[in-house]
Amino acid sequence: MAAALTAPELTAQHRSTLDRALETIRTRAYWSPHPEHPKAYGEGGSLDLAAGKAAFDALLGTRLDLGQPGTDDWVGGEVSPYGVELGVTYPHADVDVLLPAMLAGRRAWRDAGPELRAMVCLEILRRIADRTHEFAHAVMHTSGQAFMMAFQAGGPHAQDRGLEAVAYAYAEQVRTPRTAEWTKPQGKRDPLVLTKEFTAVPRGIGLVVGCNTFPTWNGYPGLFASLATGNAVLVKPHPRAVLPLALTVRIAREVLGEAGFDPNLVALAAERPGEGIARTLATRPEIRIIDYTGSTEFGDWLEAHARQAQVYTEKAGVNTVIVESTGNYRGMLANLAFSLSLYSGQMCTTPQNLLVPRDGIATDQGPKSFDEVAADLAAAVDKLLGDDARATGILGAIVNPGVRQRLEDAAGLGEVALASRAIVHPEFPDATVRSPLIVKLDSAKPADEAACATECFGPVSFLVAVDSAEHAVELLRRSVREQGAMTVGAYTTDAGVEEAVREACLDEAAQLSLNLTGGVYVNQTAAFSDFHGSGGNPAANAALCDGAFVADRFRMVEIRREA
Amino acid sequence: MAAALTAPELTAQHRSTLDRALETIRTRAYWSPHPEHPKAYGEGGSLDLAAGKAAFDALLGTRLDLGQPGTDDWVGGEVSPYGVELGVTYPHADVDVLLPAMLAGRRAWRDAGPELRAMVCLEILRRIADRTHEFAHAVMHTSGQAFMMAFQAGGPHAQDRGLEAVAYAYAEQVRTPRTAEWTKPQGKRDPLVLTKEFTAVPRGIGLVVGCNTFPTWNGYPGLFASLATGNAVLVKPHPRAVLPLALTVRIAREVLGEAGFDPNLVALAAERPGEGIARTLATRPEIRIIDYTGSTEFGDWLEAHARQAQVYTEKAGVNTVIVESTGNYRGMLANLAFSLSLYSGQMCTTPQNLLVPRDGIATDQGPKSFDEVAADLAAAVDKLLGDDARATGILGAIVNPGVRQRLEDAAGLGEVALASRAIVHPEFPDATVRSPLIVKLDSAKPADEAACATECFGPVSFLVAVDSAEHAVELLRRSVREQGAMTVGAYTTDAGVEEAVREACLDEAAQLSLNLTGGVYVNQTAAFSDFHGSGGNPAANAALCDGAFVADRFRMVEIRREA
Repeated sequence: MAAALTAPELTAQHRSTLDRALETIRTRAYWSPHPEHPKAYGEGGSLDLAAGKAAFDALLGTRLDLGQPGTDDWVGGEVSPYGVELGVTYPHADVDVLLPAMLAGRRAWRDAGPELRAMVCLEILRRIADRTHEFAHAVMHTSGQAFMMAFQAGGPHAQDRGLEAVAYAYAEQVRTPRTAEWTKPQGKRDPLVLTKEFTAVPRGIGLVVGCNTFPTWNGYPGLFASLATGNAVLVKPHPRAVLPLALTVRIAREVLGEAGFDPNLVALAAERPGEGIARTLATRPEIRIIDYTGSTEFGDWLEAHARQAQVYTEKAGVNTVIVESTGNYRGMLANLAFSLSLYSGQMCTTPQNLLVPRDGIATDQGPKSFDEVAADLAAAVDKLLGDDARATGILGAIVNPGVRQRLEDAAGLGEVALASRAIVHPEFPDATVRSPLIVKLDSAKPADEAACATECFGPVSFLVAVDSAEHAVELLRRSVREQGAMTVGAYTTDAGVEEAVREACLDEAAQLSLNLTGGVYVNQTAAFSDFHGSGGNPAANAALCDGAFVADRFRMVEIRREA
Repeated sequence: MAAALTAPELTAQHRSTLDRALETIRTRAYWSPHPEHPKAYGEGGSLDLAAGKAAFDALLGTRLDLGQPGTDDWVGGEVSPYGVELGVTYPHADVDVLLPAMLAGRRAWRDAGPELRAMVCLEILRRIADRTHEFAHAVMHTSGQAFMMAFQAGGPHAQDRGLEAVAYAYAEQVRTPRTAEWTKPQGKRDPLVLTKEFTAVPRGIGLVVGCNTFPTWNGYPGLFASLATGNAVLVKPHPRAVLPLALTVRIAREVLGEAGFDPNLVALAAERPGEGIARTLATRPEIRIIDYTGSTEFGDWLEAHARQAQVYTEKAGVNTVIVESTGNYRGMLANLAFSLSLYSGQMCTTPQNLLVPRDGIATDQGPKSFDEVAADLAAAVDKLLGDDARATGILGAIVNPGVRQRLEDAAGLGEVALASRAIVHPEFPDATVRSPLIVKLDSAKPADEAACATECFGPVSFLVAVDSAEHAVELLRRSVREQGAMTVGAYTTDAGVEEAVREACLDEAAQLSLNLTGGVYVNQTAAFSDFHGSGGNPAANAALCDGAFVADRFRMVEIRREA
């Protein structure tokens, strides 16, 4: 069968996008081919708001048959954090059948070369982008994100991260030319002349272990980095967030098939409740790459046991913001209030420990005591979330009972500066919606220090009294070194403090946002420009996205002969 | 004290060399700034033959005081494979003192940035290159290589690999700009504008664990890759091959000091006999990168236990040459004879298993039976090594008693096609010089198959009878997958066989040399053009040199703020 999608067509459609992505990862300027506004969709084959909702609704209660080999059962059971039972079932795989089948098409995919692979990946991303409204509902009803966040973070921002990974993968593979002539002079004798051929070869199958909170955003970089470097990709979604990745796999399989490649190069591994299939898959010899986002415990297990694979992990961390002084007190409070509230703090990048000198801080509104900062921050959060409808649009829903329990327990850790309140979602009364809790701690008390030295994932932040700016920096260093951090923030007008924070972040490899008071938040990073994590502290062993994230997913094989 | 070497001076001297290296790793054409011929040296500060010998002789029996902190003893005891006691002693370090001292200068080295670090590395390499004659003797009298090989492989070729690593490290770090402006449109509202600063930060200390046979060639890539990416580097030489790396460390410390950096950024960790200090160092928290060449056993141990570090290993492998047919029988035999003889096969790249169909091969000289191939190859080796003086110039000396014992044992594994003979070195009568042993094996016999399924490091090759070309390719695949291989060779005039070998090498990630009959040998690779190892089979987890070899030695830290 002739391929429906030819290489020239794909190149004509996508090469300029790839070039722009390649240019932007060099300049780190702002760019995205994926509009953030829901109203931008609905033309040229993309679903508008109504069609996206209808497409999502049509999925509910259905069997998502991906046509995968080795399907021995149908599994499902996702319940939306908003209370809706999705009722979608997915193929359960006999991995002894599925894994070999995934490798069957590997040679043609390798021989396609870096450019055609990139073009196919971009076509997959384009079709995902066209269905952004449908994906937004799928992400919302698995992660508990509010619709607008599910739309943006689960849609264009995730697609951006996927494209970024494709661009890095392409750039890395074409650093070495396809062929070379090598002529070595030999004085008066004839030169030595060799012709050399270089081929980027895949490692095998990449396993993507998805997470509950950002199935697409955290899943796409590894998926597209492995696929673009010639590997097959097996996606093992979180059991509570299967749908967005199952839809992704379906589209990838469609595009691969239409472009003349084996659809089995991308497959889904859904699991039965409690099956723990990631552990089994991770140590299979066919699995040579693993991308994982989740608990430190399992991430560490993967790094220790999946020795046959390159393992890229994003694990737990403790994010710190140092609040030492500010020239824009209101802006700082508003910015922090939003950072703490967004998706009920269920982001790996949400600040947890806000370190504030116990003697207070200098601001453009005059000096503020520690307690004033606490009260003003609480008021800023209250103001942001005062209206229930607006609040639910920012908070979303609590993703699972574990987060809810952690939130309840945290209220007992210290003096509550801001109590968490339950909010009834106007549309989904069964959703668990909670505003952030802020607890005051004192770093001088060992129990308090212990409380803020572990990740408390969810809408919980600690306002921690510290002795001084120097003390804050010392605590920051120790925290990043021991617990890791995806983000660090700092507010200071003092050049010396800024320098000390900067040095701490450079020494401990933490990404730093300074004095954010406007519409950019410490917990958000932009593809093509910001690095997500550093890969240099315990929170993650890789950054999204850089050369190291892609360079070891393939190997360069050289075949040389005399000319 | 003002730096004696200023950045502008270094840049004026070395930037063009870096640019040429950067260009060549993209084209993979032939290039080297380091002449291969001994007579090319002796001008502009470089030592000529006599001065190099005198410099080496002056080292014998001396204490090489590197001025390192924490030196608590002096250790030594190298005995040249040529029988000379070197009598040089080196600092033994109290690592609790030395390691912290090595980190003291890390900030200035980080802040120097990628270009200045590269320039300093190139100055180190230039001073090493100026002393190539001295290094040649140091390499010869630790590795047992013959003088000309010690000169070339230990001198210009090693320097090339060091420069290549610097070029890759530089390129990787400057992929991200130092600063960026990021302006995100917000419709009718003001755009979001951030300024971003990106800094390549080191991981910590890189540990280079040197090997006995190629102290500089295998040591320089890791040393320079780690140093150029801002790390400190601790060099732990093989106890029998300290001198070449100690001289390297001395030069590096001199240059760092003259350029205004802390000399302790590079240090030596010599050890007492049997101390096994690599194991202790490898798991120290300060050690964040390890480069290792040596046994699979210790390489696997490092990968499993040095979990705080990025670990790059080159381990044992079994190299195969498939001999199926040839259009240049004499050329093939001469080429193979040299490959088997060079440095008595004590190279990780020397062919071990020569797979030959038991029914013989087609050649331009008519069909040759298996036994004829065996006899003709033996004759070719005999011819190459017929003159004792010429033979010792190719063979060098047996590096240690283990290799000698292995050679003696191997003669009992099967029918001997070519016996190894002892040769008296005209200049060094105490040297153990041995010509290669070639043993016939039959893949149909389980004992023979077992014999050729493990690395037999040294001047031992097996001529293995196989059923057919297909069978040979099947054995090749299995061998690369299970034992790994640094090199694969093949001789065939059959397009189908060539394609099958090619596919096997692409599938198993092995570097393939096809039909070499002239002056290029399967066991030699050229920097800037050939990859040494693939990093994709069990013989090595990294290739020299590619993006993956450097990309994770540093991390990129971003500091962003509102513009």
